[in-house]
Amino acid sequence: MTTTPFSFRITHTDGHARTGFIETPHGTVPTPAFMPVGTRATVKALSPEDVRQSGAAILLGNTYHLMLRPGEALIQRAGGLARFMAWHGPTLTDSGGFQIFSLSARTKVTDDGVVFASHIDGQRVHLTPERAIAVQGALGSDIAMVLDECPPGDAPLSAIQRAMERTTRWAERQIDAPRPAGQALFGIVQGGTHTALRRQHLAQIADMPFDGIALGGLSVGEPIPEMYRIFAEIGPHMPAQRPRYVMGVGTPADLLTGIECGIDMFDCVMPTRNARNGQVFVRGGKLNIKHARFADDPAPLDPQCQCYTCRTFERRYLRHLFMSQELLIHRLLTLHNLQHYGDMTAQARQAIATGNFAAMKKDWLESGEGD
Amino acid sequence: MTTTPFSFRITHTDGHARTGFIETPHGTVPTPAFMPVGTRATVKALSPEDVRQSGAAILLGNTYHLMLRPGEALIQRAGGLARFMAWHGPTLTDSGGFQIFSLSARTKVTDDGVVFASHIDGQRVHLTPERAIAVQGALGSDIAMVLDECPPGDAPLSAIQRAMERTTRWAERQIDAPRPAGQALFGIVQGGTHTALRRQHLAQIADMPFDGIALGGLSVGEPIPEMYRIFAEIGPHMPAQRPRYVMGVGTPADLLTGIECGIDMFDCVMPTRNARNGQVFVRGGKLNIKHARFADDPAPLDPQCQCYTCRTFERRYLRHLFMSQELLIHRLLTLHNLQHYGDMTAQARQAIATGNFAAMKKDWLESGEGD
Repeated sequence: MTTTPFSFRITHTDGHARTGFIETPHGTVPTPAFMPVGTRATVKALSPEDVRQSGAAILLGNTYHLMLRPGEALIQRAGGLARFMAWHGPTLTDSGGFQIFSLSARTKVTDDGVVFASHIDGQRVHLTPERAIAVQGALGSDIAMVLDECPPGDAPLSAIQRAMERTTRWAERQIDAPRPAGQALFGIVQGGTHTALRRQHLAQIADMPFDGIALGGLSVGEPIPEMYRIFAEIGPHMPAQRPRYVMGVGTPADLLTGIECGIDMFDCVMPTRNARNGQVFVRGGKLNIKHARFADDPAPLDPQCQCYTCRTFERRYLRHLFMSQELLIHRLLTLHNLQHYGDMTAQARQAIATGNFAAMKKDWLESGEGD
Repeated sequence: MTTTPFSFRITHTDGHARTGFIETPHGTVPTPAFMPVGTRATVKALSPEDVRQSGAAILLGNTYHLMLRPGEALIQRAGGLARFMAWHGPTLTDSGGFQIFSLSARTKVTDDGVVFASHIDGQRVHLTPERAIAVQGALGSDIAMVLDECPPGDAPLSAIQRAMERTTRWAERQIDAPRPAGQALFGIVQGGTHTALRRQHLAQIADMPFDGIALGGLSVGEPIPEMYRIFAEIGPHMPAQRPRYVMGVGTPADLLTGIECGIDMFDCVMPTRNARNGQVFVRGGKLNIKHARFADDPAPLDPQCQCYTCRTFERRYLRHLFMSQELLIHRLLTLHNLQHYGDMTAQARQAIATGNFAAMKKDWLESGEGD
């Protein structure tokens, strides 16, 4: 069996926005693409068929969680992440860095790597840049991410600069580390909301032969307009022939703004996590199903949505499930929210291909009955 | 629109076992039938399509839970239980009695009815026999059950006798209470494990024009052989032309033993509840997915099962989901357990039609790799 090599081709542009296809060993991803987060080898509450139904073509798996449980060796024996979870499609794995910095206790970073205490059992774990690549190789994702140092949103300039420099040194150690056939490796640009640092770091990372370039360290507490400014200042200057990925972002408005600035890929827990809290994305905004005004409402969640939940159930039933803490509600609201993201990106691709992206963006965010 | 009236016809018998069809306003139910429990208008963790896929043709809804939340008036406005939950097929509702006696605090029974404190907010609720029928009328189930008094399994003879007599008096008040067009009403026989009491009560209940007859007060703590003795002593003597239903039962062996004694209908939380605890029914017994021996097991849950879970996932993945407390595991194990019950009843119907029920029963319970 030959492995399809990783490749990216742009088919249309509309301003800075682009649409195209990423080819991976496990299949094709139309871009711009939203990647649902399958933290522990499952998109919470959904089957792989549910996820596919929503229009998602690629999933993100969290290296941090998977290396701790069930461990990358088990997943490798099961044929890799895509096969283990019966998704069988393209996957991207992060490096584990972001979770180590946000979830673990007693984290210590040196140039060698990161030592941290597992959030499951407190066990000391050592993750070096080389090990991050080896673990992702065992997971067998189609796209691996370099281990980077991700400082908090309110970090002082000096800490951001130090993290940036270390990220570059780590990137140099990872670019030539052995990987499975066909697995791509993306570099990560840090630099907070500082334009000069972002530009400087982009130049360093873009100079290495990464298959794609990501912006890390966004949506970590900075004001939204600051993030949008970075999208606009940096997005269009990222290498045009490689996929551009903004990590951990975001709301529908964040995605459409990123797409407008030339970004191709996004991931975020927002549609899945918010669903579990009752928050539902609808055209023009969002609503929370637990609100008393839905107690006897026979309408679907979003009259413009064609997802299974909206085709099948009334708001008053969904609210009953939520108030009764019934397990089914998590699947139904997650299905809907992912469909919202799937429909939005599908419409964005279509609009870019026909030169109508600006109108599509405005229409998606402003028409509808959301709050 | 004309409503299909309730009817029952037997197509084959094999010893005491019978197979046939119940017609209801919402569709046809092949018997013997297992009814998954949809306590709060949802079979926990499953969509209506999931339930149908398992082979189930009729669901049970709990009047006690539904009258407290969201309330029968809301469900009536939504078009009845089957439409509210988008099941659209046949439903049976219990009377609420069993849950009142097992879940509620400060329960007081008089001939008038039951007064109890809601387990949700402690509010005092009054349920009379007439109100039990009215609530089930609002829920719009295809089969309603009379309110009965269900004493605990270890109740003294005098308490069982008193409950039996009260159940008869209540039955007389309910048989002529107004019901929606096409809704059937089943009577309930009490009497514990006392053959003479069961016979006496059966005679009283069978004498009234109920559409079906149920055995209540079983699987409430008595030894299994005692329950099987009652199946054998009472089942074949229940009116042959009306459906016979054993309430709240049971294991695969319980169902097959009941079917052998001429029972047509069963309901139980076991396949759904046990799934949420990791316990899975397989040919020949059961297994618990959390067991360490499944940690690296690439086999499906049950190699003889064709459910979505068994067609799609390996035990090692399912165990990972269970150990990680991932929401998806509840759907996957519940799907499988209901398919186990669905396949078992389908095979029983087939075996009865061809005169092979005894062999089918033995084969189902003894071949396979369960513990």
